[in-house]
Amino acid sequence: MNQKIVVAGLGLIGGSLAKAFRKYSDCRVTGIDSDPGVIDAALQCGAIRRQATPEDLNAADLVFLCLYPQADIDFLKEHASALRPGCIVTDVCGVKSFLSPRLSEIAEKHGLIYIGGHPMAGKEKGGFANSDADLFSGASYLLVPCGAPRGAVDLMTAVAVELGFGGTVVTTPEEHDREIAFTSQLPHALACAYVKSPRCPGHAGFSAGSYRDVSRVASVNESMWAELFLDNREALTEELDTLMGNLREIRDAVGSNDAEALRCLLREGRLIKERLGEA
Amino acid sequence: MNQKIVVAGLGLIGGSLAKAFRKYSDCRVTGIDSDPGVIDAALQCGAIRRQATPEDLNAADLVFLCLYPQADIDFLKEHASALRPGCIVTDVCGVKSFLSPRLSEIAEKHGLIYIGGHPMAGKEKGGFANSDADLFSGASYLLVPCGAPRGAVDLMTAVAVELGFGGTVVTTPEEHDREIAFTSQLPHALACAYVKSPRCPGHAGFSAGSYRDVSRVASVNESMWAELFLDNREALTEELDTLMGNLREIRDAVGSNDAEALRCLLREGRLIKERLGEA
Repeated sequence: MNQKIVVAGLGLIGGSLAKAFRKYSDCRVTGIDSDPGVIDAALQCGAIRRQATPEDLNAADLVFLCLYPQADIDFLKEHASALRPGCIVTDVCGVKSFLSPRLSEIAEKHGLIYIGGHPMAGKEKGGFANSDADLFSGASYLLVPCGAPRGAVDLMTAVAVELGFGGTVVTTPEEHDREIAFTSQLPHALACAYVKSPRCPGHAGFSAGSYRDVSRVASVNESMWAELFLDNREALTEELDTLMGNLREIRDAVGSNDAEALRCLLREGRLIKERLGEA
Repeated sequence: MNQKIVVAGLGLIGGSLAKAFRKYSDCRVTGIDSDPGVIDAALQCGAIRRQATPEDLNAADLVFLCLYPQADIDFLKEHASALRPGCIVTDVCGVKSFLSPRLSEIAEKHGLIYIGGHPMAGKEKGGFANSDADLFSGASYLLVPCGAPRGAVDLMTAVAVELGFGGTVVTTPEEHDREIAFTSQLPHALACAYVKSPRCPGHAGFSAGSYRDVSRVASVNESMWAELFLDNREALTEELDTLMGNLREIRDAVGSNDAEALRCLLREGRLIKERLGEA
């Protein structure tokens, strides 16, 4: 691949994409970031060729929006007319029902092609400093075409292959958001709720893998995650209600010393995990 | 170390202890298990020298009870008179307030020395087949002396060093159980509650590290964990109530679209994690 690419927002995901294109493809990547220190760092390590100029935007084959949801919208509104018609615009955002129709509408107005994307990879710490050319190795790349032509899906699939993703899954904004509420947003809410136990500060020496795993993502960027949570309110509240209901059943079985009910509840969890081939 | 050791119960923990003694010490380990197939496997790989005989019990310097809580009690009741006075008896159980006074009482009656122990290591799958000489590498070994003399604590500390543990923490049954309710029992309850979401069966392709981490231990042995949960009812229900309360706050902030409240709740989690030096 040797596309001309602009990455807007060189955080963990945008920075990792820029580094991955540099490491694994012949694409020419320029970048945009509100933090001059990040631009310097990205230049220094070669992740971007230069800070994107208006000419780079106009010449771009593919633009990655790697900002927060509302900032993605604002960016595209501001720069859509600077892009050439036919340019493919994608995002990396963890919410789609809210975001995709908005980005799609702006793109359409300007003759651009929008296709939603969500690389299923992350780290407990964000920012360019933590970005990594190999972050996507083996990960799933969710594609949300929203009516984009086949060529755009093919290009994004080629990007996934080139950057070392494990595969792509084509989905709708609604299915995406319902699944992500469960697989990603709920664990983040959970990690935060979990570490607020009065026992947490004293865990050292008393903990092993279970504490580490549940608390791993507690150190969220609250501005970004609050925006993501609220843009996916319906699906996330549904997942939180489901989880609290399931916890309540276990709590009641424990509280009433009901061994048979408790074994039954735990067995259900084990069987689900086993049926998925994960145990 | 060249103690004579009997391991009663060659599951994940007992089997790993036997293998670790074999690999890292000169101790002579014999074993007991209700499953003849497990005894055969343990003999075949050299984890034990032989199935423990009455003579082995009588000669033992150190007996590890590695059964379920009630089975530990039943075993000690049955075999205490076969052990020589002064023999040290320890367990590896995840609950102590219920178990330790009972084991301590039986031991005292027979001139044995009881010291509680809890190796903070595990795997999502149990049984001798999953046991590993290096399971304890770098792990914390919780010691619950319950009045045991200094010599017993010193011996268990030497065991920890010899088998590659990262260190020991001396604690009380009550403190042990309160912390374990948070660091271990709650994550197991959570994993089970989590995978019951209707979204779980469709997670493939939509998930990454967060799903994997929260769901990891969902495949619990329900008989063992139900017993552990119920033997630690008070501390565990307290943790479950705390967690559900914290989840409820997040749920309400999301449900009422209150960005400021949500950011504030998430920030609290991040600050706790950062203060612990874990982020």
